[in-house]
Amino acid sequence: MTKIIFVIADGLGDRPIKEFSFKTPLEVANTPNLDNLAKEGITGLMHTVDRGIRPGSDIAHLSLFGYDYQKYYPGRGVFEVLGIPMELKKGDIAFRGNLATIDDRGVIIDRRAGRIESSLLIPKRMKVNIEDVTFFLEPSVLHRVGVVMRGKNLTSDIYDIDPHEEGVTPNRKIAKNKSISSRRTEIILNKFMDYMHDYLSKNPENIKRKKQGLSYANFLNLRGPGEYKEAPSFLEKYGLKACCISGADLYKGIAKYLGMDVINVEGANGRIDTNLNAKINEAIRRLDSYDFIFVHMKFADSLAEIGDFEGKKKFIERIDVSLSPLLKLEDTVVFFSGDHSTSSKLKMHTGDPVPALIWGPKEMILRDKVENFGERACQEGGLGHFRGITLMNELFNIIGKQHLIGD
Amino acid sequence: MTKIIFVIADGLGDRPIKEFSFKTPLEVANTPNLDNLAKEGITGLMHTVDRGIRPGSDIAHLSLFGYDYQKYYPGRGVFEVLGIPMELKKGDIAFRGNLATIDDRGVIIDRRAGRIESSLLIPKRMKVNIEDVTFFLEPSVLHRVGVVMRGKNLTSDIYDIDPHEEGVTPNRKIAKNKSISSRRTEIILNKFMDYMHDYLSKNPENIKRKKQGLSYANFLNLRGPGEYKEAPSFLEKYGLKACCISGADLYKGIAKYLGMDVINVEGANGRIDTNLNAKINEAIRRLDSYDFIFVHMKFADSLAEIGDFEGKKKFIERIDVSLSPLLKLEDTVVFFSGDHSTSSKLKMHTGDPVPALIWGPKEMILRDKVENFGERACQEGGLGHFRGITLMNELFNIIGKQHLIGD
Repeated sequence: MTKIIFVIADGLGDRPIKEFSFKTPLEVANTPNLDNLAKEGITGLMHTVDRGIRPGSDIAHLSLFGYDYQKYYPGRGVFEVLGIPMELKKGDIAFRGNLATIDDRGVIIDRRAGRIESSLLIPKRMKVNIEDVTFFLEPSVLHRVGVVMRGKNLTSDIYDIDPHEEGVTPNRKIAKNKSISSRRTEIILNKFMDYMHDYLSKNPENIKRKKQGLSYANFLNLRGPGEYKEAPSFLEKYGLKACCISGADLYKGIAKYLGMDVINVEGANGRIDTNLNAKINEAIRRLDSYDFIFVHMKFADSLAEIGDFEGKKKFIERIDVSLSPLLKLEDTVVFFSGDHSTSSKLKMHTGDPVPALIWGPKEMILRDKVENFGERACQEGGLGHFRGITLMNELFNIIGKQHLIGD
Repeated sequence: MTKIIFVIADGLGDRPIKEFSFKTPLEVANTPNLDNLAKEGITGLMHTVDRGIRPGSDIAHLSLFGYDYQKYYPGRGVFEVLGIPMELKKGDIAFRGNLATIDDRGVIIDRRAGRIESSLLIPKRMKVNIEDVTFFLEPSVLHRVGVVMRGKNLTSDIYDIDPHEEGVTPNRKIAKNKSISSRRTEIILNKFMDYMHDYLSKNPENIKRKKQGLSYANFLNLRGPGEYKEAPSFLEKYGLKACCISGADLYKGIAKYLGMDVINVEGANGRIDTNLNAKINEAIRRLDSYDFIFVHMKFADSLAEIGDFEGKKKFIERIDVSLSPLLKLEDTVVFFSGDHSTSSKLKMHTGDPVPALIWGPKEMILRDKVENFGERACQEGGLGHFRGITLMNELFNIIGKQHLIGD
C-alpha cells in the first residue's frame, strides 16, 4: 500500500517583504528540494479553514486532518496537556499556561518572560490545591506550562486569563455567565493566579535572575480552556495507522487526540535548533510500520511572530535541506505545506493561503507545470485553490483508498 | 432561446500511464474536435461531488444535474429499472441484477458471467412469486437484469446481496437491523436467490453453453436496493424541456427520474460498438423541440475498468469524431465532460477531477487560453476547479436564464 508522509511547516506562507524586494521568505529562500518536489508533483494554494479565515495552529491542524473544528475542537488547552503528556479525565479543565512577567501594578510587561525555560521554575508533577480543587502543572517547551484543573462543578466555558497583549493586566473577570459553575471556576482561578504569583515571586531562581537583570517569570497566564471531547480516531475515520513526529507539545496533543502514536525523536525539540534531518529520517524509517506519518516543523512561525523574516528565510532553507531524502522514496506520497501563513511584518497568523504540494509515484500524480515552490509560483498549480478540510479526501483518493459513494 | 447540449463521456478522466509516457488516454488521443471546442470555449476541472470524493455514476449524474444526492438519491436499483423501462409503484423495492457464475461451493467465480446477454436466459416480463411477494424481472444490456420486488412490509434498507468481488459467496445476511420488514425482506430474498439459482442451472441455453465451455450464468446477484422517491423534475427546477439520449439503462433511468424524455436512437446500445455519431446527430435534430439535451456515452469507463487504456484512448477518439457537427451549431451551448475519472491502472472510479469544457456563442463565453482538451491542459482553464452541483447554475447563467436573487 502507498504510504503518506505529511509535512507541515508551521506558518510557512508570508507576504511580500520590502527588504526582500517584495518577495516572501519562502520565495527568496534557496530551496532546491522543495522546488524539485514541486516540479515532480502537483501544487496549489490551500486555505486551511476557508478563504480569508485566520486560524490558530490547533484549528488549522484539525481542518488539515479532515475534522470539522466546529464539531471537534476541544479547546487548545486539551491539546497542550495531552501533548506533554498529562493525564486528562472527563470533567477536567485543561489550559495552556504561559510564564509571564508582570510589574508592581500587575501589568504584563512580557507575555513570554523572555521565553524562559519553565522547567527552571515549575517542578515536574507539581500540584496545587485551592479549596476542593486540585491543579496539576507540568513544565513544557520554553515558557509553556500545562495546567489541568480537577474538581466538581467546573466549566471550560470561560474567558482566557491571558489578555493576549502586553501593557494590560490579566483578565480576572473570566466568567461568561452567572451560572454557579462559571462563577465558581472564576473564583478558584483567581485564587490560583494569586497563589502562582506568590509562588513564582519567591522562587530563588527568579530572584537570582531578576538581580542579574535577566528575564524572570512572576506570573502564570492561562489560555485555551478546554474539556476532553470524543472524536473518531484517524484509524476509525480513514483506516490508516498514523503517527506524529513533532517537537512541540501542541501537535503531539492533537495527534494523541486523534489516536495517532506520538514518536519522540532525539533532538526534535520544537526550538530553533531542532533536528529537522532527524525528524525526516525517522519518518522514513517508520514507513514500514505506519501508513500515515505526520511531521511537524515549528519554528518558521515563531520567527515570523517576532518579525524575524531573515530568520524565517534561513529556517525554511534548513527545512529544505532536511527534505532531500524524500525525493528518493518509492510508493510514497508526500504532502508539504503549512498550517497557515504568518506575516513577518504583521507578526501574526494571517488568513492568506499557504502554498502546498503533493508529490508521489509518477502514475498517481498529474504533474503540473509549476517548477518552483512559493506563494506565487503555486498560484498556477494544478490543484488550484482548495480548503484544508478536503485535503485528506484528496490524498486518500490519490493512494486509491477512497471508498465509493453510490454505485 | 439558446439551447444546451450536455455530453457526458463516462469515466473520461484518467491518470498518467507509463506506456503512454506518463500521459493519460485523453491526453494521447487524437481529438481535434475536442481541442477546437476547448480552444473556442472555456475549460476547467470538475469535482463532480467534491474534491477527492469517488462517486458512482448514479450519484455523479445527480450532482451534475444539480440535485443534492444526500436528499434525492433513491438507490441505484431505482434508476436501473426506470431505465429499462419497468414500472415502479410506491413501496416497491428495485434492484440492479447482475447475472453471475458461481461454483459448486456457491463461490462467485465470475461476477458478470462473461458479460453474457441476459435476454438469452431471462424472458421479457418474467414473474416469480415467493410466498406473497412478486418479483418482476426484465433483461437489460449484457449481463444486467432489472428486478422489482412487490409486496407488503418490505424495505430497501438492506445490504447488497452482491459482495462486489469474486472468490467469495453472495451475502445472505442482508438485514441491516432486527425490524420485521428487514428480516422479512431478507428471508424472501434468500428464497428468491435459491429459486433463481435453480431456474438458471436448469436453463437449456446455460446447459448447452457450459458443455461448450462458454461462459454461463447460474446466479442472479442483486445490488443497489432502492425505493421510489419524489424529486422535482428538470422542468420544475429549471424550466427547461429536457431529453436524454443514452444506450445504457442507468442513465435513461436517471433521466426518467428527473422527468426528462428518453429518446432511443437506433444503434445506441451502451456497448463498445454503440453508434456515437447517431447520438450526436439525433441530439442536434432534437434542438427544435428540447431546451436541454443530455447525451451519455458509456464505454470509456467500461474499458478503463478492465484496464484497457489503449481501448479507452481509441474510444475517446471515436467520441471525438462524433462531436464534429457540434462545432457548426449556432445559438447552442455545449457542455462536455465526464461524470468522474476512471483510472485504467487502478481499474476503478477515482475522485480525480474531470476535465470539462463549455462551448457556445462568442458573445456568451469568455474564452480562456487553453487550446487542448485534457487533464493537464484544463488545469489552466478559465473555469478553474468547480463542483458538479454548481454546474447547472453556471450553464443556466450562461444562456441568460438564471433568475435573480434579491432585488
